[in-house]
Amino acid sequence: MTGPPLSQFTLDREAPGSLKQKLREEILRRIRLGVLRPGEQLPPSRRLAEDLEVNRGTVSAVYDELVTEGILDSHVGRGTFVARGLSLEVLGPGESPGLFRWRDHFTALDVHPRERTLLAEIAARGREDVISFAGLVPDEALFPTETFRQALNTVLQEDGASLLSYGPPDGHEPFLDFLAGYLAETRGVRIGPNELLAVNGSQQALDLLGRAFLRPGDTVLVEEPSYYGALEIWKSYGARLVGVPVDANGVVVEGMEAVIARERPKLMYVMPTFQNPTGTTLSAARREALVRLAARYEVPLVEDDFDGELYYGDPPPPALKTLPESEPVIYIGTPSKMLFPGLRIGWVAASEPVVRHLSRLKQVSDLSGSQLLQAALARFAASGALREHSDRVREAYGERVRRLLRALERHLPRGVRYTRPRGGLSLLVTLPGGVDTSELLEEAAAKGVLFTPGRLFFINDGADHLRLTFGNVRTEDVEEGVKRLARVLRRALGRKAAATRPANGYSIPPV
Amino acid sequence: MTGPPLSQFTLDREAPGSLKQKLREEILRRIRLGVLRPGEQLPPSRRLAEDLEVNRGTVSAVYDELVTEGILDSHVGRGTFVARGLSLEVLGPGESPGLFRWRDHFTALDVHPRERTLLAEIAARGREDVISFAGLVPDEALFPTETFRQALNTVLQEDGASLLSYGPPDGHEPFLDFLAGYLAETRGVRIGPNELLAVNGSQQALDLLGRAFLRPGDTVLVEEPSYYGALEIWKSYGARLVGVPVDANGVVVEGMEAVIARERPKLMYVMPTFQNPTGTTLSAARREALVRLAARYEVPLVEDDFDGELYYGDPPPPALKTLPESEPVIYIGTPSKMLFPGLRIGWVAASEPVVRHLSRLKQVSDLSGSQLLQAALARFAASGALREHSDRVREAYGERVRRLLRALERHLPRGVRYTRPRGGLSLLVTLPGGVDTSELLEEAAAKGVLFTPGRLFFINDGADHLRLTFGNVRTEDVEEGVKRLARVLRRALGRKAAATRPANGYSIPPV
Repeated sequence: MTGPPLSQFTLDREAPGSLKQKLREEILRRIRLGVLRPGEQLPPSRRLAEDLEVNRGTVSAVYDELVTEGILDSHVGRGTFVARGLSLEVLGPGESPGLFRWRDHFTALDVHPRERTLLAEIAARGREDVISFAGLVPDEALFPTETFRQALNTVLQEDGASLLSYGPPDGHEPFLDFLAGYLAETRGVRIGPNELLAVNGSQQALDLLGRAFLRPGDTVLVEEPSYYGALEIWKSYGARLVGVPVDANGVVVEGMEAVIARERPKLMYVMPTFQNPTGTTLSAARREALVRLAARYEVPLVEDDFDGELYYGDPPPPALKTLPESEPVIYIGTPSKMLFPGLRIGWVAASEPVVRHLSRLKQVSDLSGSQLLQAALARFAASGALREHSDRVREAYGERVRRLLRALERHLPRGVRYTRPRGGLSLLVTLPGGVDTSELLEEAAAKGVLFTPGRLFFINDGADHLRLTFGNVRTEDVEEGVKRLARVLRRALGRKAAATRPANGYSIPPV
Repeated sequence: MTGPPLSQFTLDREAPGSLKQKLREEILRRIRLGVLRPGEQLPPSRRLAEDLEVNRGTVSAVYDELVTEGILDSHVGRGTFVARGLSLEVLGPGESPGLFRWRDHFTALDVHPRERTLLAEIAARGREDVISFAGLVPDEALFPTETFRQALNTVLQEDGASLLSYGPPDGHEPFLDFLAGYLAETRGVRIGPNELLAVNGSQQALDLLGRAFLRPGDTVLVEEPSYYGALEIWKSYGARLVGVPVDANGVVVEGMEAVIARERPKLMYVMPTFQNPTGTTLSAARREALVRLAARYEVPLVEDDFDGELYYGDPPPPALKTLPESEPVIYIGTPSKMLFPGLRIGWVAASEPVVRHLSRLKQVSDLSGSQLLQAALARFAASGALREHSDRVREAYGERVRRLLRALERHLPRGVRYTRPRGGLSLLVTLPGGVDTSELLEEAAAKGVLFTPGRLFFINDGADHLRLTFGNVRTEDVEEGVKRLARVLRRALGRKAAATRPANGYSIPPV
């Protein structure tokens, strides 16, 4: 999403009439639509002329004419504005009734990155022989659907009508009770009453946080690389993103103090455990340092713990929210990666003022979540099925990631590096440089393998990287998928080497 | 929600230190938090001095001091600003680490109207003998919970795992297919492919529309009175609300052209059928005139058809979206009033560019809705249960509203007027004037009856009105509820008459 479409004037060169007439009508139209309001500034004539590829004199002539008519105001050195006291009635309904150009009405245009469009297109082709390492989704084959169905039946039989009514905005009470126990037991996060909010997936938590904390121009500190969907949310609220690099021990906290002091972020957003896309985990020492920084500079610190329970060896270090001085930490979680994404359930654990504020924003945005699904999840967990399921997926995904790492070790071309996650569902592959992974997507799809290009996760560039997810790949397909990927990468690296090798065979160019 | 808290400086008078020191620290703190950014303006010293109840000289002295230090910039005639090139590092982490005043971080403060707070408090007391005409909720006793449970079981058994996975952002396909047929059959709304979007209740539809179309300062034309939750959404996007009155035939379209031409709204928001709170229905002639106006002035026209299927006599006139020239109409609906609010399902039917844009905004805000619940609803409807249920609720609510109207006729004091809805779940009562219904809420609760005060539905005042809803009142309680209400109103009108009667008995005051 980019800024408002104020300056996105367009001229239909095919239509009859002079460019001058069309530009005049285009400006009047925006005023009529309320898109360009009295007192608001028009683009400088030079820039508008360039954008529209017309003579600057044409733009100036239209501006002058409208100034003479009292519709625009021109202030030397400040620019041209819609006249502040303009009486809008006189503009009437416009010349082409029936025309309805919706894009002129939107506050922001949707700029979908071509990587997402391409991935969607490839998916739509529905080729069954493609082995997909793209998309952070869990394996449907592991879903305990039948047990969940039973839980759903139980709660519907016991409390059906009330679960199908409007529910409290913070969430279904028995669900919040279950959640408080679950977070304490599994992640050590202990919360008081009124410190929990149920939301529609962690995506909604992020969205509500953007709404609560961000004004256009605010700064958000993020890990680089980070979750694409979060970067998109912060940008949709007009935030400026500042990236902090991630290494094998998670986001590099050393040196962050200077960044915070310089940038004064309104939010910091991290995934300390099995980070997306790298799969790396923030070390215990860094966790403490990060929380101390947030407290010292009073910066709200969003801890996205979307997959903290998906560990394949030792459990990860305690959540940031368990540490001393963790008042600034806003903890968010979801069963989407561990259990069922389709429940669209997530949660926020934070100080009461934050939860109260987010709860009000949630009421405004969609009243409440589904009590029925929350109740069913709580019942499912109470039956012991959640614990059983956790053990089962840890074993299955653990086996899968070990196989993936062995295959990467065995098949990837030399010089290609990758992270070694001990949990979660993704890892990051880094090429030696000079190859743009976005450009390889079609070729990979043709060879029967898919990945997510790195650009989506980085603020700047990221073309050298690609993300592999293993949640939705059959264990027995992992090695074949890596072989296909390795072939694509080997070719690309070969092409790059050929292109950078000087034509005359010398590696030092003649002077 | 009001504007940004930039100027909401607070001084802790109890803390040690001079007011001057505290104000200085307060300004520095906001700069450190990123709440007040380089280049942003501080409040004029006079206004800040008034807000904080300190001497204006104190504010000026602090401003001057910070200007001397290069932290602020002062421009004669323009005001005082945070210095544009200010290097923020030098400000350090602030003086009171550990302090975390969350409200200073929020972009907007939550101004909950006292009526809502009071209604929530009264509800929390949980008195069972209260007859509540407050809250637009359907009757749980009418819910076809068991039939729905069966539908849920069927879809889970057939498609469980895939329904518990991530779904397409526009909604579950078979649900959208059902919906297209349902809207055509029941409301005459015929839509093409890619013109339907499933959302989390119509509240989310409104929120996405605000996000898509509004910038702070934009104008939204609304019916007055209107749905409180919608007014709150438009305001949360910074909109200026302009009200158009409602009469027995719905919103008064005559004269609206001049308002549109003058105000140039970005959106118009109407509930043409069984409007909330009045229950009135827009006449066929006005429907046509309204759609023509929207097309002529190219204004997106939001048609909230939240209860169009709840008619108790003849069906209502066709939806706006069925009329010629209805390109500007963005139709939204929900089964929340007709069936189960707890499903949190709603829909938008509009032109493809609008649906595509809203779908992208929905992805950013919560990825997608619950496929499982959408599939179950489609299955429930396919079994014929929805049609059967519709007949049943029409009969039950029809009987209830007739009883309510008879009781109002019989018991309300003279001079109290009320609307006579032929559908929906609410009506509006209007007192002769001078009584503030918000002030009667506690008294009514004490007498065992509840209503919603009129202020919530009006942009300006509305104190003379109150809304009665009959979805969640037992039919046999209706008359007793009205009797209690009548007693409260009679007393209030009596008090008012006594207060306005001149003390000396003359109605013309002595000169």
